[in-house]
Amino acid sequence: MALAGKSLIGFSTGRGTGASFHALNPATGTQLEPSFISATQSDVDAAARLASDAFAEFGQTSGKRKSAFLRRIAERIETLGNDIVERANLETALPVVRLQSELGRTCNQLRMFADLVQEGSWVDARIDHPEPARKPVPKPDIRSMLRPLGPVAVFGSSNFPLAFSVSGGDTASALAAGCPVIVKAHPAHPGTSELVAVAMQSVVREFSLPEGTFSLLFDAGYDVGLELVRHPSIKAVGFTGSRKAGHALMSVASSRPEPVPVYAEMGSINPVFLLPGAIKARSLEIASGLHASVTLGVGQFCTNPGLVFLQDGDAAQKFLKELERLIGGTAVATMLTSGISTAYRAGVDKFARTKGVQVRARVLQSDGVAQGGAVLFTTDAETFLSNRGLMDEVFGPSTIVVLCKDSEQLVTCAQALEGQLTATIHATDEEMASHKNLFSVLETKVGRLVVNGFPTGVEVCHSMVHGGPYPATSDGRSTSVGTRAIQRFTRPVCYQNFSDAMLPDELKQANPPGILRLVNGKWER
Amino acid sequence: MALAGKSLIGFSTGRGTGASFHALNPATGTQLEPSFISATQSDVDAAARLASDAFAEFGQTSGKRKSAFLRRIAERIETLGNDIVERANLETALPVVRLQSELGRTCNQLRMFADLVQEGSWVDARIDHPEPARKPVPKPDIRSMLRPLGPVAVFGSSNFPLAFSVSGGDTASALAAGCPVIVKAHPAHPGTSELVAVAMQSVVREFSLPEGTFSLLFDAGYDVGLELVRHPSIKAVGFTGSRKAGHALMSVASSRPEPVPVYAEMGSINPVFLLPGAIKARSLEIASGLHASVTLGVGQFCTNPGLVFLQDGDAAQKFLKELERLIGGTAVATMLTSGISTAYRAGVDKFARTKGVQVRARVLQSDGVAQGGAVLFTTDAETFLSNRGLMDEVFGPSTIVVLCKDSEQLVTCAQALEGQLTATIHATDEEMASHKNLFSVLETKVGRLVVNGFPTGVEVCHSMVHGGPYPATSDGRSTSVGTRAIQRFTRPVCYQNFSDAMLPDELKQANPPGILRLVNGKWER
Repeated sequence: MALAGKSLIGFSTGRGTGASFHALNPATGTQLEPSFISATQSDVDAAARLASDAFAEFGQTSGKRKSAFLRRIAERIETLGNDIVERANLETALPVVRLQSELGRTCNQLRMFADLVQEGSWVDARIDHPEPARKPVPKPDIRSMLRPLGPVAVFGSSNFPLAFSVSGGDTASALAAGCPVIVKAHPAHPGTSELVAVAMQSVVREFSLPEGTFSLLFDAGYDVGLELVRHPSIKAVGFTGSRKAGHALMSVASSRPEPVPVYAEMGSINPVFLLPGAIKARSLEIASGLHASVTLGVGQFCTNPGLVFLQDGDAAQKFLKELERLIGGTAVATMLTSGISTAYRAGVDKFARTKGVQVRARVLQSDGVAQGGAVLFTTDAETFLSNRGLMDEVFGPSTIVVLCKDSEQLVTCAQALEGQLTATIHATDEEMASHKNLFSVLETKVGRLVVNGFPTGVEVCHSMVHGGPYPATSDGRSTSVGTRAIQRFTRPVCYQNFSDAMLPDELKQANPPGILRLVNGKWER
Repeated sequence: MALAGKSLIGFSTGRGTGASFHALNPATGTQLEPSFISATQSDVDAAARLASDAFAEFGQTSGKRKSAFLRRIAERIETLGNDIVERANLETALPVVRLQSELGRTCNQLRMFADLVQEGSWVDARIDHPEPARKPVPKPDIRSMLRPLGPVAVFGSSNFPLAFSVSGGDTASALAAGCPVIVKAHPAHPGTSELVAVAMQSVVREFSLPEGTFSLLFDAGYDVGLELVRHPSIKAVGFTGSRKAGHALMSVASSRPEPVPVYAEMGSINPVFLLPGAIKARSLEIASGLHASVTLGVGQFCTNPGLVFLQDGDAAQKFLKELERLIGGTAVATMLTSGISTAYRAGVDKFARTKGVQVRARVLQSDGVAQGGAVLFTTDAETFLSNRGLMDEVFGPSTIVVLCKDSEQLVTCAQALEGQLTATIHATDEEMASHKNLFSVLETKVGRLVVNGFPTGVEVCHSMVHGGPYPATSDGRSTSVGTRAIQRFTRPVCYQNFSDAMLPDELKQANPPGILRLVNGKWER
C-alpha cells in the first residue's frame, strides 16, 4: 500500500506546509520513504472542529453500533496485518514476531472494548424512583449514567507502535466511550501510523459515522501536539511517553481557560523486592526470570524492572553471580530510535559514575547505530537512599541491584520510592505473612503489586491496572490498560424528572439493553 | 457545651498562636463568644503527619467497621442536635427549621455512606482467573479493587454549615473510602464547626481508631488552608465555595512536587429554559416555582437559578408580570455574612448598570446589616450574548430573565453557556420531542438536567450528580453528592499472583463480604 505522508483530517488530507521528515530505520540509520509533512495549526483546528461536530452524533451512538465499529477496525487491521508489521519492523527494529503479537494484542483490545460496550453495563446506570407523596417535599425521579467527555487527543508512543499508538488502548477506550479521537502520530513510526489510520478512516466511512470521529496528525516536533491539547474542542488527553513530555502536556492542559484531564503514563522503574527465603528456594529461577524481564524487548517497556532490592547474604551473593552471568551474556540489540539509544547510554554512564555504584556486567555496544547492551549495577541501601537520581528511569535493558542489610532496610527503601506502575515481591508464604508492612508501604506507591512473578507482560483484562501514583502517571486514579480505561473519558450526567421517551435507553424503565443497574440502591438487571 | 476556640489536632488541641477571630451574628453584626485562634503552620504539619500515620491503619479498616463509625458519628451529632442548631442559627442566621433539616440531611449522608461501605460492592472488585496452560505465555491471576488515596483536606462551606462542612458530604465520603480527613473550618461558623468536630473526635476515641483519623483547623484567613493543600501528606482536596478560592486551591495542588486532585465545587448560575407551550399551560405554577427556587434560603444555594431563558410572546409577558409581582413581594432576609451581603449588592448593582439590562423588581434592603433583597432583571438575547459578565454568579436571590425571539435563539444562548451544575427545561411533551437539539447542547454543559422542576433541592441518593464541567467544578468527572462521591477519594490497585491469604477480603476466592464482583468479565456475587 502506497503511503501519502500526509495528515488525515477526517476524510481529507492535511494541507501540511510544516516541516517534512522521514522515518529512519534504527538498525541501519537509513531514511525510509516517503517523506511525511508536519501538520499546520489550521490542520489542528480543522481536525478539532470536525471532532467537535462529530461528537454531537458519535457521542449518542449506541453501544451495539460502537461495538460493531470497533470490531470492524480490528478486522481491517488484521487484513492489513502483513503490510503493517513489515513497515513497523523497518521503522522500529522490533522483531516481526513481537510485532505480530502486538498487532494481535491491539485487535484484542479493540474487541475487549467492543464486548464491553455491547454488553453495556459499564455506563454505571443508576435509578432512584420518585416518591410524590414524601413529606416535607416530594422525591423526584433521578437517573444518571456515564456519558462521554468529548473529543480526545491521543499521543502515539514510541515503544508500542500498535498497542499504544493510532488504534491502541487510549483510542479504543475513548471511541468505546463515545469520544471522537485525534491521534498525534509518533514521528518514529509515521508509516505504521498512516497504515493503521487509513484503515480506521475507511471504517468510519463504511459505518457512515461523521468524518470527525477520527483524525491523524503528523509532526516532526512538539508544536502540533501542544496546539492540539490547547484547542478548546479537546476535552481529554491520553499519552504514553517521557516524564518531560508528559509534564509539558499537563502544564498546557491545566493552564487552558478550561482545564482538561491528562492521562499521561510517564514511565516507572518498577522496583522488585527479593526476600531471602525466596532467593534461597528459587535462586536460579528468579535470576533467569529477572534477566528476561530486564532485557525483554531491549528493556523498552514501561514495566521494565530498573531497581531490585535484595537482602544481602550468601544466597544473595550467589544469586548476583548468576544474574551477572546472564546479563553479561545478553546479545546486543537494536533499540527503537537512535535518540533512545543515546539517552540509554547517557543514563547508564550517569549511574556508572555515581559514587557507591558498581558496574557488575555491561554488554558493549558499537557506536553509530541504535544499539542497547544490557547492564547490571549494584549498590547499597545507603547510596540508594542518598542519591535520588538512582530513581530516574533509564529506558533500556539495565537494572540496579540495591543490597539491603535487613528487612527493615527493605522497608526504608520502599518508603523512599516515588509513585510507580508496579512493585514486585518474591517471598515464601512465611515471608509474605511476616512482611505485611512492606506490602502496605508498596501498596501506597503503585498501581499493581506482583507476587513471585515479574512486572513485564501487562495482561489485557478487566482487572488490570496499568497506572499508579504520580510521577508514574499524571493521574493515579486511572488505568490505561483494562476495561476501567474507558472511565477516563466519561463523566456522570443526571436526568431529573425525564419522561421515559426522553431518557437514554440505558435509563428507560424497561431497561431495553438489559444492563446491570443500581435501582433504589440495589444492583439488578 | 463550652467552646474552646482551638483547633483539634487528633486528640490534642492546636498550639494556635495565629490571629484570633470571632464569629459574628449576621442578623445583628455583634460578636459571638468565644474567640477562635487560627492554626499555625506547625498545627497543619502535626495534623497532616497524624493523618498520614493514621492512614496505615484506617485505610485498611473493614467496611463494616467504617460503617459503624459513620453511624455513630451521626448518632452523636443527633444527640447534640439542639446545641448545634442553636449555635449555627446564631452564626449563620439560617432559620432553625432549615438547620434542623440540614442536620437531618447531614446524618442521612453519613448513614448513606455507612450503608454503602457496609454492603461493600462500591469497591468495584474485579477478578480474572489464571490460565497456567495458556500459550505462548501463561495468564496470571489478576485481581483489583478501589483503595483509598490517603489523607484528604476538606474545606467547610459558608452556605451549608453542616451538610457541606465538618461532617458533611466530602468528609463522609472520604472517611467511607478509608481516608483520614483534616477539615479547615469556615471562619463564619467556627462554633458550629467545633461542636461537630468534638463529636467526631469522641467517636474516633470510642472506636479506638488512630487519632489522626480526624482533625479540625481554624483560620481567620487563607494561609492555613493553602498550607494544608501544599502538605505532602495530603492526597486529595474537597472544597465548596467561590471560584476565586477554588482556583487558588487548584493552582497550589497542581504546582506541588506531587500534584493532587482537587474537587472544588465553585458555583453555577443554573440556567432555566422556558418553552412557550409550558408557559402557556402552566404560567402561574412555573412563576411561583421559579420564585421559590430563586429566593429559597435567600438565594444562597449553588443550584440557585440565576439565568432564565424565556421565548418571548404574549404568554411570556404575562408570566413575567407574575414573576415581577412575586419577586417584588419577597420579604427581605438576613444573608450568611456581611461579606456575602456586600458582594450580593455589588453584583446586583453591576447587572443594573449593564446597558440593555432592566431592573423589573428590586426589594430594598437597609444598610448596615447583612440583608439580601430579591431582584428580577430582564434583558434580551443579544445583550446576554455580548456580555459574558452576565454569566457571573451573583450569590443571592436575584435572577436575570433573557428574552429570546425564537427557539433557535434559545439554542444559541445554551451554546454560549459555561459549564454548570444544572440546567432546567420546562416544556410540554411535544416541545421535548421537538427540542432535542437544546437537550443535546445542555447535556454537554451540565452535571444534571431537570425537566419541569427546579434545580434547588439536591436529592441525596445513589444517582444524584452534583457536579458539572469546569468552571462549575474543577473536575467535571465527579460529584460531591450521592454515593458516587466516594470514588473521588480512591484509585484502583491490582494484585497479581497473590495467595488467597494475602488478598483483601473483597478479592478472596470465597468472597467473604458477599459483594458484587466482575469475575472473568461477568458480574456476580
